[in-house]
Amino acid sequence: MASSAESDRYTRGMNALRGISGERGPAVIASLDDIAPDLGRYIVEFAFGDIYLRPGLDAPQRQLATVAALAAQGDTAPQLKFHIDAALQVGVTPIEIIEALIHLVPFAGFPRALNAVAVARKSFTDTGARFTPPVQNDDSSRYDRGARKLVEIDGQHGLEVIESLHDISPDLGRYIVEFAFGDVYNRPWLSPQRRQLVTIGALTALGDAAPQLRVHIGAALNVGLDRSHVIEALIHLVSYTGFPRVLNAITVARDVFAQHR
Amino acid sequence: MASSAESDRYTRGMNALRGISGERGPAVIASLDDIAPDLGRYIVEFAFGDIYLRPGLDAPQRQLATVAALAAQGDTAPQLKFHIDAALQVGVTPIEIIEALIHLVPFAGFPRALNAVAVARKSFTDTGARFTPPVQNDDSSRYDRGARKLVEIDGQHGLEVIESLHDISPDLGRYIVEFAFGDVYNRPWLSPQRRQLVTIGALTALGDAAPQLRVHIGAALNVGLDRSHVIEALIHLVSYTGFPRVLNAITVARDVFAQHR
Amino acid sequence: MASSAESDRYTRGMNALRGISGERGPAVIASLDDIAPDLGRYIVEFAFGDIYLRPGLDAPQRQLATVAALAAQGDTAPQLKFHIDAALQVGVTPIEIIEALIHLVPFAGFPRALNAVAVARKSFTDTGARFTPPVQNDDSSRYDRGARKLVEIDGQHGLEVIESLHDISPDLGRYIVEFAFGDVYNRPWLSPQRRQLVTIGALTALGDAAPQLRVHIGAALNVGLDRSHVIEALIHLVSYTGFPRVLNAITVARDVFAQHR
Repeated sequence: MASSAESDRYTRGMNALRGISGERGPAVIASLDDIAPDLGRYIVEFAFGDIYLRPGLDAPQRQLATVAALAAQGDTAPQLKFHIDAALQVGVTPIEIIEALIHLVPFAGFPRALNAVAVARKSFTDTGARFTPPVQNDDSSRYDRGARKLVEIDGQHGLEVIESLHDISPDLGRYIVEFAFGDVYNRPWLSPQRRQLVTIGALTALGDAAPQLRVHIGAALNVGLDRSHVIEALIHLVSYTGFPRVLNAITVARDVFAQHR
Repeated sequence: MASSAESDRYTRGMNALRGISGERGPAVIASLDDIAPDLGRYIVEFAFGDIYLRPGLDAPQRQLATVAALAAQGDTAPQLKFHIDAALQVGVTPIEIIEALIHLVPFAGFPRALNAVAVARKSFTDTGARFTPPVQNDDSSRYDRGARKLVEIDGQHGLEVIESLHDISPDLGRYIVEFAFGDVYNRPWLSPQRRQLVTIGALTALGDAAPQLRVHIGAALNVGLDRSHVIEALIHLVSYTGFPRVLNAITVARDVFAQHR
Repeated sequence: MASSAESDRYTRGMNALRGISGERGPAVIASLDDIAPDLGRYIVEFAFGDIYLRPGLDAPQRQLATVAALAAQGDTAPQLKFHIDAALQVGVTPIEIIEALIHLVPFAGFPRALNAVAVARKSFTDTGARFTPPVQNDDSSRYDRGARKLVEIDGQHGLEVIESLHDISPDLGRYIVEFAFGDVYNRPWLSPQRRQLVTIGALTALGDAAPQLRVHIGAALNVGLDRSHVIEALIHLVSYTGFPRVLNAITVARDVFAQHR
């Protein structure tokens, strides 16, 4: 931290960390002093000083992508707790956090979502967050509303996925329409743009879902995010998933951008 | 849940859930009421009402695939406990459960298997399951019996994998024959069909094992499962791994089906 | 264990296990007697009798690759604790262990590294390991020293990765140079060869990072490891990640070997 540039990175990183976590973040960093002080410094300088304050995504968007990536990869309960607390601190509502976790189900299955909800419960208790969970109440045909939502979000590529299943498992295609889109995507309590940031966070963290990432980076552009949002989200995820999964996602993004419009 | 169709899905889903778990499943659902009630409803309606009761796989087959997928992906201890309990409830024997976990070793390594055995131990204690673990006792050549088993299970594709290693690591090929097939696949305490459902569950959950999934979907057909069993197992896994990994496995299955016979 | 060959494998495996863990390893094996005795026997015979004692990698190299693979895959805390204890026992220093975990950050993100450091802390406490963590203090340009290190480690392929990002995310390329190489790779407290074994362990365990594994198997050869070290490391990892991820890594290694020099 001797040079002025390094000192700046540390100072602004610590400010960013405090901004989302109060004294909890600095306490995590201090807890590393006796065993891996440079690891703590890298969190401050790189994850927060370099990346977190970049323009292009606001703090709620960053926290939702982080929560999705941590929940999808699993075995990150302490960090997930920290970042759900931080999401609340920067203005993400408890309802949006729960929506983001429900949104994970089609992408990562029920177990990851259930474990993350258990962490959210602790966070809400610790931070005194109170809310009444909304309940979906929609008598319309799940298939019809799902098909509309699928086209709205994924466009032609979404329909192609469903049609490609007709020869081998039409029911699986139907479940995507009814459950992933009719039930989950259709829920009004998280905006389509935030849903796509959650999706990109989850799929990047899974790492082996390139075909789905392709569809959903296209979907991000469809719902009004622009290319810089996508790239910024991927850069943001480096701290939580490492470079390899982000680099592989960038390769997918490049292809999508080349074909989009 | 207002419409009649939704109500039916909920009712039959809750019955299915009770069928494998008694009151434990409904208690998990109720525990979500204050924080994510729709997540609980989706488990009942989608995972159990839509998927679990589908014909094509019986409950023991479903539970073995579930246990394999949960153990292989890791960080799912509460769900793994629930589904080992459920496996016992639907008639999977403790010996078969342990066999399924030993079967995971060649696919996911010892740590995942060891952690899952620790969960199984709790399940057996809680449910009062008693058994004497069988001990393999076979003086024949591990390589010879492994090579026979490899051909029996994987056919020509299995031999090709071993031969493809001759130029770079013949010992790795030998270990596959001796350990994966001579030791593990050769164990008589889980049927070849159930082993392949466990294998498909584990490889789908790992997500990045397409070449091996290709060999082992072929093997599933070799040991007498038919295409509908494979597809049904993959649909079943949506609840535990999400759609992306299942969709990617379906892509592999389509190729295997096109080439098989 | 009836035949003489089997008995030899068990005896030499148990000796190897004792060699790295004293009585802790045999105690883990004994704890499986009532539930999965053959699983314990396979650990002794296969993981230790067949693999661990192979020439080509020494025990510290094996333990560093193991620690990296366990930390990167997550949900392996008991095994990670066991193998950090064992790393200390075979002469890996606490500083090297922490360096290996810091080295994971660019590959697997901060959360996996933080959780592994928490496990290392327990190990150091239990084993009485004492050390003063080194602190990096380098005023030179992070980009300049990172670019030099990148070329030293990855050669032309590393530069190609950075250049390939110019059209879509030059900042991501800059972070790889500054953070992954200027900060992390540049640290002097773990040798380049050991860093590459850690890298190969982590990338093989992640499973979905073939492009990065390609670069870093090449890098392993660049820093003086030879092909047999790479293959031996991959064989070693079978016990911790299973055959599929190792087989897929072998496919990458074959390509790298064909193109190298």
